[in-house]
Amino acid sequence: MKRSSVSKATLGRLPKYLGFLKGISDKYISSAAIARDLSLGEVQVRKDLSSVSGRGKPKIGYLKSDLISSIEKCLGNNTLTNAVLVGAGKLGKALLDYRGFEEYGVKIIAGFDSNEAIVNEKENILPMSEFEDFCKKENVHIGIIAVGEGSAQGVCDLMLKNKIKAIWNFAPCKLKIPDDIIFVQENLALSLAYLNNQLSNNF
Amino acid sequence: MKRSSVSKATLGRLPKYLGFLKGISDKYISSAAIARDLSLGEVQVRKDLSSVSGRGKPKIGYLKSDLISSIEKCLGNNTLTNAVLVGAGKLGKALLDYRGFEEYGVKIIAGFDSNEAIVNEKENILPMSEFEDFCKKENVHIGIIAVGEGSAQGVCDLMLKNKIKAIWNFAPCKLKIPDDIIFVQENLALSLAYLNNQLSNNF
Repeated sequence: MKRSSVSKATLGRLPKYLGFLKGISDKYISSAAIARDLSLGEVQVRKDLSSVSGRGKPKIGYLKSDLISSIEKCLGNNTLTNAVLVGAGKLGKALLDYRGFEEYGVKIIAGFDSNEAIVNEKENILPMSEFEDFCKKENVHIGIIAVGEGSAQGVCDLMLKNKIKAIWNFAPCKLKIPDDIIFVQENLALSLAYLNNQLSNNF
Repeated sequence: MKRSSVSKATLGRLPKYLGFLKGISDKYISSAAIARDLSLGEVQVRKDLSSVSGRGKPKIGYLKSDLISSIEKCLGNNTLTNAVLVGAGKLGKALLDYRGFEEYGVKIIAGFDSNEAIVNEKENILPMSEFEDFCKKENVHIGIIAVGEGSAQGVCDLMLKNKIKAIWNFAPCKLKIPDDIIFVQENLALSLAYLNNQLSNNF
């Protein structure tokens, strides 16, 4: 099993590089020129690009077309990965509504909720009873859990049963998950806690 | 200016320690016992606690009451820090609605929006025209930006003008901010990008 060496911070800069590369006419481009144009550190740009596309040629840099396709491959831009979300409360709706995910190669193709009053086909919020059939029909690889703490493990188990391979959990609880499943635990409160901790140490 | 040595990861575990400590009757407690009860690594617990409260006594551990007050101080639990949010769209409402922030010492006391149709005093969403007076009256230290890219810098400038010292930005854009302001840029898409990148390298 090959683990990727691309960090979250690097991933965050890739769309910026991509936008820049697509806007220039040069055939070759150096990391120094990219750093200058995007006001980034040269060392950082060199490190980012080498983790995605190996080293450029000395004194020439990267063949632009190669670099673009390496970045696109890394971001999965060529083939959007399908994600589904369970729990269409305020947070779930905000995530369904967010248009920035496709830039990073992921599309949330539907939300699901057990509350019939929230179900709304126009907004792509479907009843839980359709979850299994939907996952079978569509090629869903990523599951987003935006339900409360009490329902999260059940939703997670259902996702894994339906061949979802990666889980993004917003519920504030530990989940039992097999080792081969890719997992990110989101905790929005942590950013605020960090700000608050820094505040009390600085002022 | 003293910088805190408490990492985000440690901050994330502090409420767990606090809950555990408040639930036991012992006068002294060792990091080994805490690790065992919370299914955490002993080295990690020792590191977490020493960054918050120094080292425990050899063979005895920590005086529980001291440890509790150190953790509470670090989380700012004794005095909630007031935060305001600007931009009460779906994401903004989800944040206003979230009850987990107080556990980390922060309270979002009001949201603001320039769209009159969204303003709703019952839900604590006030018109932008009241922002400056509100900040003057209440003791607001943290500002959360949940507006679109185009309005973010203006909102940020307004927050700084009103003596807000820490900014949490959800708008997907770089902000011009003085060095002495504490700042966290949130990018939810990055977690999804990370999952996707790991998926494409593992399956």
